[in-house]
Amino acid sequence: MIIKLKPRTTINEISHLTEYIVSLGLSLQTIEGTSHIVINILGDTSKIDAKSFYAFECVDEVVRIQKPYPKVSKTSPQKTIVTVGQANIGDGSLTIIGGPCAIEDFESFDNIAKTLVEYNLTIMRAGVFKPRTSPYSFQGLGQEALDIIKAVKDKYNLAIVSEITDKLQFELLEPYIDVFQVGARNMQNYELLKALGNINKPVLLKRGFSNTIDEWLMSAEYILAGGNKNIILCERGIRTFDNTYTRNTLDISSIPLIKKLTHLPIIVDPSHAAGRWDLIEDLSLAAVAAGADGLLIEVHQNPQTALSDGAQSLKIEKFIELVKKCRKLKQCLDSI
Amino acid sequence: MIIKLKPRTTINEISHLTEYIVSLGLSLQTIEGTSHIVINILGDTSKIDAKSFYAFECVDEVVRIQKPYPKVSKTSPQKTIVTVGQANIGDGSLTIIGGPCAIEDFESFDNIAKTLVEYNLTIMRAGVFKPRTSPYSFQGLGQEALDIIKAVKDKYNLAIVSEITDKLQFELLEPYIDVFQVGARNMQNYELLKALGNINKPVLLKRGFSNTIDEWLMSAEYILAGGNKNIILCERGIRTFDNTYTRNTLDISSIPLIKKLTHLPIIVDPSHAAGRWDLIEDLSLAAVAAGADGLLIEVHQNPQTALSDGAQSLKIEKFIELVKKCRKLKQCLDSI
Amino acid sequence: MIIKLKPRTTINEISHLTEYIVSLGLSLQTIEGTSHIVINILGDTSKIDAKSFYAFECVDEVVRIQKPYPKVSKTSPQKTIVTVGQANIGDGSLTIIGGPCAIEDFESFDNIAKTLVEYNLTIMRAGVFKPRTSPYSFQGLGQEALDIIKAVKDKYNLAIVSEITDKLQFELLEPYIDVFQVGARNMQNYELLKALGNINKPVLLKRGFSNTIDEWLMSAEYILAGGNKNIILCERGIRTFDNTYTRNTLDISSIPLIKKLTHLPIIVDPSHAAGRWDLIEDLSLAAVAAGADGLLIEVHQNPQTALSDGAQSLKIEKFIELVKKCRKLKQCLDSI
Amino acid sequence: MIIKLKPRTTINEISHLTEYIVSLGLSLQTIEGTSHIVINILGDTSKIDAKSFYAFECVDEVVRIQKPYPKVSKTSPQKTIVTVGQANIGDGSLTIIGGPCAIEDFESFDNIAKTLVEYNLTIMRAGVFKPRTSPYSFQGLGQEALDIIKAVKDKYNLAIVSEITDKLQFELLEPYIDVFQVGARNMQNYELLKALGNINKPVLLKRGFSNTIDEWLMSAEYILAGGNKNIILCERGIRTFDNTYTRNTLDISSIPLIKKLTHLPIIVDPSHAAGRWDLIEDLSLAAVAAGADGLLIEVHQNPQTALSDGAQSLKIEKFIELVKKCRKLKQCLDSI
Repeated sequence: MIIKLKPRTTINEISHLTEYIVSLGLSLQTIEGTSHIVINILGDTSKIDAKSFYAFECVDEVVRIQKPYPKVSKTSPQKTIVTVGQANIGDGSLTIIGGPCAIEDFESFDNIAKTLVEYNLTIMRAGVFKPRTSPYSFQGLGQEALDIIKAVKDKYNLAIVSEITDKLQFELLEPYIDVFQVGARNMQNYELLKALGNINKPVLLKRGFSNTIDEWLMSAEYILAGGNKNIILCERGIRTFDNTYTRNTLDISSIPLIKKLTHLPIIVDPSHAAGRWDLIEDLSLAAVAAGADGLLIEVHQNPQTALSDGAQSLKIEKFIELVKKCRKLKQCLDSI
Repeated sequence: MIIKLKPRTTINEISHLTEYIVSLGLSLQTIEGTSHIVINILGDTSKIDAKSFYAFECVDEVVRIQKPYPKVSKTSPQKTIVTVGQANIGDGSLTIIGGPCAIEDFESFDNIAKTLVEYNLTIMRAGVFKPRTSPYSFQGLGQEALDIIKAVKDKYNLAIVSEITDKLQFELLEPYIDVFQVGARNMQNYELLKALGNINKPVLLKRGFSNTIDEWLMSAEYILAGGNKNIILCERGIRTFDNTYTRNTLDISSIPLIKKLTHLPIIVDPSHAAGRWDLIEDLSLAAVAAGADGLLIEVHQNPQTALSDGAQSLKIEKFIELVKKCRKLKQCLDSI
Repeated sequence: MIIKLKPRTTINEISHLTEYIVSLGLSLQTIEGTSHIVINILGDTSKIDAKSFYAFECVDEVVRIQKPYPKVSKTSPQKTIVTVGQANIGDGSLTIIGGPCAIEDFESFDNIAKTLVEYNLTIMRAGVFKPRTSPYSFQGLGQEALDIIKAVKDKYNLAIVSEITDKLQFELLEPYIDVFQVGARNMQNYELLKALGNINKPVLLKRGFSNTIDEWLMSAEYILAGGNKNIILCERGIRTFDNTYTRNTLDISSIPLIKKLTHLPIIVDPSHAAGRWDLIEDLSLAAVAAGADGLLIEVHQNPQTALSDGAQSLKIEKFIELVKKCRKLKQCLDSI
Repeated sequence: MIIKLKPRTTINEISHLTEYIVSLGLSLQTIEGTSHIVINILGDTSKIDAKSFYAFECVDEVVRIQKPYPKVSKTSPQKTIVTVGQANIGDGSLTIIGGPCAIEDFESFDNIAKTLVEYNLTIMRAGVFKPRTSPYSFQGLGQEALDIIKAVKDKYNLAIVSEITDKLQFELLEPYIDVFQVGARNMQNYELLKALGNINKPVLLKRGFSNTIDEWLMSAEYILAGGNKNIILCERGIRTFDNTYTRNTLDISSIPLIKKLTHLPIIVDPSHAAGRWDLIEDLSLAAVAAGADGLLIEVHQNPQTALSDGAQSLKIEKFIELVKKCRKLKQCLDSI
């Protein structure tokens, strides 16, 4: 960590500051530059709050050198592979996860499940509790959805990803689902993250729509710090100044970046990024080309009557087409 | 609600869409413009999900006319006044709330409380559970903090604002605090909002750092829809492209806007917006001049040793100065 | 265009407004909804300034139905193909343009040119005047660069793309270059756009780093309105809240969106989006997969000594690798 | 400047890098920390391009310690005072500048001028050339506007601020106007900035709507580097994710920040920030309370028929009210 001091800082102020640094168990080096004095802090600063130094009036700027997420950081070329049922996410293969935003009834859910199996897809998304912007919107079927999950899961031997929106839902969901999804709005719900750190089941951690990559990895650090290593990161678009035509902006660069910064796998959810079905295929192909370990796609039997996210759900036929194209593309990329 | 159709939409597609609209209990009017067909939906659409129409391939754009937050909307000139202890927030007066980011020990908390009372301030902020970006940072004292609150509250007859970060903390906090604060990161934690809709105690609802004003008011609608009318909105800065010098950008325009859009009172938290103590006074004066009903300010006895938010906490002397200046300014504004 | 009126608008106010609308040569229809009165304006509103209606106090919201860029809008499935030397941009093929940020000397420029020709690339980028954030940075070689361009261009029969930063440079540049590039910072330099509307040479119009897609297309409309149809759009990343690891965020969705909204071709500049060489290959592959008509890549013989943009320039060997991979990918995509 | 190296950097790579640093006339110090090697560059780095170091593959991060705008930086408590006619901007007083977006005809311009004089306002804004998003919108009266300026200026002894959108307009505008305004879209039009650096007349430099404070000050450095010290900075709102209710977000914090970073005065333009007349008064009061040296306000005799910016223009009566209130507020603030 490097601390730049303000001009005209007194010797007295410097000694206050250095005493404080030493009291944290760190050592330091003071360098007088042309225009500023700079303090280099030596030692493990990964768990130190860089902002705390600004409380000293003489501090002009604090620059972090060590990343604040030691367990998430990539320190060797080895990648983490997260096993979900028959799929190994992060092993170089492409895992496509499909399913409805929310479970609405047995028949349509069963129908999508059948399609997945037909195309050798082994993980299904399935909303039970839905966080909705409006209190008047459909909030998910709850227990009824879980019964449907049970029936379909057993019938087709599918692994199920479902969103958990509150720590209290944990016991209810646990027997039915294989991957706990943390949604964008809950990426910094630390009570939830701590709870998921204490289990072993995989966690699919979506990036908050306005969170930096560093904040996203800090949230993953919460889960890893608790002992759970089975984390799948999921990019789903960020909020920018331009939302005229898409709900969010898919941050395609996050894919290669995440691979440089961490050993964790990354998948992409183009459905929530675009917020409209007619861009999903192009964005999926782009994500695969950029190196994503998988895709998370909303599929609905009849999007026009969907109780949520109809605008961004693919019809089953279009989803199948997407699966075929992405697989061919992956094959091609592997041979390049 | 107005729906613009794509060019070359067929009559068949239009009848599918209009049937669906009618099935929602709404009526409509179709208008053929120079370049597009437009459908005007008539009836109460405040609880309809505008996005759902995009699932129809012929739909080009959906425009909401009615706001989706009927209970929060301002329909008469009457304002909601939220009473917290001796203060009436929203009645035209200025309410300044001060206190530390988190309670760290009895002595320093007692000391700040004493200062508040000396200056006739009747509400104190007091962190018990702290949501922190890093799992390695101080997370609040929990029960120990509550005991300190109890002692200080009784001694000085202060009302206490404290953040709730999970539904499960409700029973623990309830006996000790007077206002439940929902932090920026939890503004869309709907399970928490629903729980707070079922009580009568005031809720201080902070704007998420990347949430639009409409989303903020939708979260307030969740609480109002549950039956709790005692909501205080709190602007605390939004995330923008420029964070070189401030943590967030204080959205000063939100103050007059909120007054036009809703009957609820609005206060401003310049401490979290700026993230640095040396801008707090100027931003506080600006907020008061723009019409804020109150201020929420972080104060610490010794910011350099603060376990959290030291960089943005004011020393007690500087806080007193700010209180004096803001009060003089308010007096002046009332006379203009 | 649709105008939503405020509650409690008087009949007098409505007639003022409708008179004004009629005075613009438009007709209208007034609809009384449950909560609001709405006015539908009929007629060609593509050239009307929607914001002007807000000057009427009774106006609550104005919604544009017709796009304000009639000439740029896609009204038929036919695409514009822009011919640059031997390349046809927009005809379904992939055009890769490479070259240094700025021309620094004959030898290195000649060297890159030779490589391009070897790999059948026929368009080269070549900076003559460089807009730089700092007045103390290298500003381009000017006339000296033009002499180098002349020599290299004739030797290898290459077409040259170069940035114009001021109308006054036009006569100087015109004899030497084949495509006028309008940089991100000049996307709304309307005097420059008007000048480029009066010529026939192709214009490569970069998206401003903080401009919406609609604003970008409005700038293209300036050029088309002047009579020049040879416009190549270029996505180069937008400014978002997260710039920790990349200079800008490549807006990958803009590629399929532009294809829906306009008949003009779109290419992608991953070098400026990322601002770092080590992401360029992944972003290029993603852009090709998403359907881009071409790529614009910064290449330098020795990036470490580059006078500008060294951080984001590819070495020649890495550029060749990228060209090979993108071509294989394109071939694969064409066969899917 | 501080350079953090990647893990596993070789000695060879380090010596390449250090040789390069030395070749720039700088010295350095290498520090081995717990996890990384860090290089401190010593010497004047204010004119060095920090990004250039990223071209070295071993470089992980470059951190600037010295600001890149040496002439604009505040190195002593002394402020620059810019004299415009009878006003001294930056001397602690409040300068309010009013006038129409664009000059439309003599009579209405004369009328506003008369009002300004009546209220002892000595500077008037007056648009001659208007940069407009649409090529079909009113682009300003040009020479005709200049004749009107001449007549009104002489009659009332007013100083005139007008926007220059292209270097070529310089000779035309020069005899008529007292302050050259650089608009938000031209803040990085470096050819224009260089031209304005060569004169002595004051320049009103608006912040680009998506430019950081550092970029804004870099543009001011261009003008100062040329020798012109008469620069007035103008905050006019930045683009954020929320533009539902305002065109831009007024960055109120920029006022106290600019005062810390530079010796130049700062005024605020709430009209362009809000984009709507009904917020102007509240934002003006906030700007004055936050310490602005002045205000720039759009005023129109009849906003409903304005050829540009009618939505955000104040009627004359409302403008007078604003002037009175802001002056009372300023008096009050001076006494606090």
